[in-house]
Amino acid sequence: MRSTTTDVVVVGAGLSGLAAARTLVAAGASVVVLEARDRVGGRLLNHELAGGGIVEVGGQWVGPAQHRVNAVIDELGLERFPTYDEGDNQFEHRGRRSRYRGAIPRVNPLALADVAQAQARLDRMARHVPLDAPWRAPRATRWDAQTFATWIARNTATSLAREFFTLMCEAVFSAEPAELSLLHVLFYLHSGGGFDALIETDGGAQQDRVVGGSQRVAQRLAEELGDRVVLDAPVRRIAQDGDGLVVEADGVAARAARAIVAVPPTIAGRIAYEPALPGWRDQLTQRMAMGSVIKCMAVYDEPFWRAEGLSGQVTSTEGPVKVVFDNTPSTGGVGVLIGFLEGAHARALGAVSVDERRAAVVGCFTRYFGPRAATPSEYVERAWAEERWSGGGYAGMLPPGVLTSIGFALRRPCGAIHWAGTETAERFSGYMDGALTAGERAAREVLAAGLDRRVGEVVDA
Amino acid sequence: MRSTTTDVVVVGAGLSGLAAARTLVAAGASVVVLEARDRVGGRLLNHELAGGGIVEVGGQWVGPAQHRVNAVIDELGLERFPTYDEGDNQFEHRGRRSRYRGAIPRVNPLALADVAQAQARLDRMARHVPLDAPWRAPRATRWDAQTFATWIARNTATSLAREFFTLMCEAVFSAEPAELSLLHVLFYLHSGGGFDALIETDGGAQQDRVVGGSQRVAQRLAEELGDRVVLDAPVRRIAQDGDGLVVEADGVAARAARAIVAVPPTIAGRIAYEPALPGWRDQLTQRMAMGSVIKCMAVYDEPFWRAEGLSGQVTSTEGPVKVVFDNTPSTGGVGVLIGFLEGAHARALGAVSVDERRAAVVGCFTRYFGPRAATPSEYVERAWAEERWSGGGYAGMLPPGVLTSIGFALRRPCGAIHWAGTETAERFSGYMDGALTAGERAAREVLAAGLDRRVGEVVDA
Repeated sequence: MRSTTTDVVVVGAGLSGLAAARTLVAAGASVVVLEARDRVGGRLLNHELAGGGIVEVGGQWVGPAQHRVNAVIDELGLERFPTYDEGDNQFEHRGRRSRYRGAIPRVNPLALADVAQAQARLDRMARHVPLDAPWRAPRATRWDAQTFATWIARNTATSLAREFFTLMCEAVFSAEPAELSLLHVLFYLHSGGGFDALIETDGGAQQDRVVGGSQRVAQRLAEELGDRVVLDAPVRRIAQDGDGLVVEADGVAARAARAIVAVPPTIAGRIAYEPALPGWRDQLTQRMAMGSVIKCMAVYDEPFWRAEGLSGQVTSTEGPVKVVFDNTPSTGGVGVLIGFLEGAHARALGAVSVDERRAAVVGCFTRYFGPRAATPSEYVERAWAEERWSGGGYAGMLPPGVLTSIGFALRRPCGAIHWAGTETAERFSGYMDGALTAGERAAREVLAAGLDRRVGEVVDA
Repeated sequence: MRSTTTDVVVVGAGLSGLAAARTLVAAGASVVVLEARDRVGGRLLNHELAGGGIVEVGGQWVGPAQHRVNAVIDELGLERFPTYDEGDNQFEHRGRRSRYRGAIPRVNPLALADVAQAQARLDRMARHVPLDAPWRAPRATRWDAQTFATWIARNTATSLAREFFTLMCEAVFSAEPAELSLLHVLFYLHSGGGFDALIETDGGAQQDRVVGGSQRVAQRLAEELGDRVVLDAPVRRIAQDGDGLVVEADGVAARAARAIVAVPPTIAGRIAYEPALPGWRDQLTQRMAMGSVIKCMAVYDEPFWRAEGLSGQVTSTEGPVKVVFDNTPSTGGVGVLIGFLEGAHARALGAVSVDERRAAVVGCFTRYFGPRAATPSEYVERAWAEERWSGGGYAGMLPPGVLTSIGFALRRPCGAIHWAGTETAERFSGYMDGALTAGERAAREVLAAGLDRRVGEVVDA
């Protein structure tokens, strides 16, 4: 086993860990980043199509209000390009598909009014949730004692509104409304800039893509860090003592004054800590599970739907693919449709063979875009629940009763161990932007605490 | 690293793992039990008082309907004795304490009627939840989409009833109603024989204790197994291949045809599996968190409350100690009061110093039993959330949305790995009885699958 000494060990070379390392290095600290996989990027993952061109099988979009990720993209010399958003969108409900322009499908005005009143109510409640301490919201106890499903059932009058909010929940959290604390949903809405910002393309969280694929952001950060990033080094154990800590990974051990753990809380819970972490921290990691999503893409020789005046964007209350986008790479040359299997649909179709899943997904595409969609030249998918170093996607989420009791444990350091990862962000939690700011915040914590090895106290509840 | 070969490896020498091993050995199989701690028993743990006499800081009670645990106690030559249950119980509400006999405190008849109607409704619903497949209950989707807190708020008319069900939830699950799926609560009620059976002493789950302490059941089982039980051997990795599997613990590796993992699901999720387990199993372990309980005992030179006609049993809606029992050992010589800090109270008082916690607990005892309770000769406590190999107590529990989506993953084997532990039991899940029957069921699964090493297929989702 190789052994090394450094000021700070960062666990995880996703965006958050890399941003933490970059901030530390800029401040003159020595850093080692230990990454379990044979690549950097975590939940960001490029895929090169058979005929050339890059698509992402992980996180891919950035929104205009996500200032930090946009700034970092600029700093790294990368470029954005807009998600294809011209022509008509489609909305499918009860077996009927309709085309529409802009944000609002043409459906029963009563149902539209119902959605609008519920959405306005959610946004109003969300603004009362403090991003740094959601448990201090005026009605935090009540909101954290119920599921989002309970709220939807009580606050909508039409089945279309209920189906819409279910779909929205699946698309944003890759989880069902039954799984989520209403308080966590409200926090997330506030964190992401409101309901519309989370679900919209133009002006919203799906507005832009990164030329060459979003994983390039992580790759560029890693290039800057050079051999400070160690791949194939899953961290198994972190032992704290009076002199800081030792982080043990397969093949390498690093002694440091402090550590930043920048992996999802549920994955962080699987590291062996010596001494054991305080119960409040351990129990948080037992409760913050990852969502379920399978990203599925079909590749065609051209984006034929564009010529038919279609944007490629579909929203369906039927599924199993309920959300579709045109995901053609910036380099063109092919046409790519991306469909999301989320929450219950990811679980159901995650349990069948690839062939069956492909048939279900391509079947949806064909229903939405006609017979040309039935014969893609390539099918690409990634089931994030099968990824051991992520545990699922998009992000960790909280069931009822956790935020108000041990929500503080998300960010509170345990001795010389600090916590990063997009789940710990205040703004754009769950997004690339949140991953970056969370890593930077953890790095500032470490720098403020000091890097004298003697400073690292042993964990104390 | 010591290396060994056996038919079956059992992970965890709690009651469930020991019962599995015993069943396998009786059928002629060779078995190795790998235990992380330096003792057997898991959530069963005896404590010898300073002045002699055994009390339990872990699980301790058995009920008359729990036939399997009673039979095993008999088989092992151990004895039961009744929980002290003579004299008056006390009920505290809104600063007023009242004495009562039997099961029902003297409170406002309207509130009593409210509790009774809600309890009857819960029991009726619970009987419709199939123990082998709770997700097949007629209204499973609806019941699993809400928290127990939501159900309580909707189905009670008085604040006393709401406080009573909150207290009952804390006492039975060591969790708050906000954390639990209504469907899981109903399953648990059905599994445990109904509401009254779970909360009552005489005739219920708290009726009897084991002479010498409940851990003796595990110790006797371990004695029978002899050197098949390996202590101080935390399992870190289970690798499956075409020839069965290899289980790696600190200091020892065992090759076997099959493995039975008999630890709580959240702890099982922290083992490294090769190949990675299917997403549905991994995501279940991310979602089945342990409750929070601190068992606190104060020791006096005699059970002085008995002379005052008090049973020692207290139920308080105020807390922080909301449930108290007379926990004097069968050997007498001292008097012991046991108080439970559960759910939110365990978390709040788990974060303060032992002195503060002791003061809060002894303060409650003094409020309930007068000034003689203020000066115990010994104070004993155990915070189960701080126990790394349990992760909390009493048992794993499910937030909304899990049972109906991936509840099947609790028991479904993954290749050559089978799952035991009280959480996987159909009857008396969460209790010693459930631990035993779950271990025996897993052993039968293994025997039915066969012990030819070639039979162990690699995990396949």
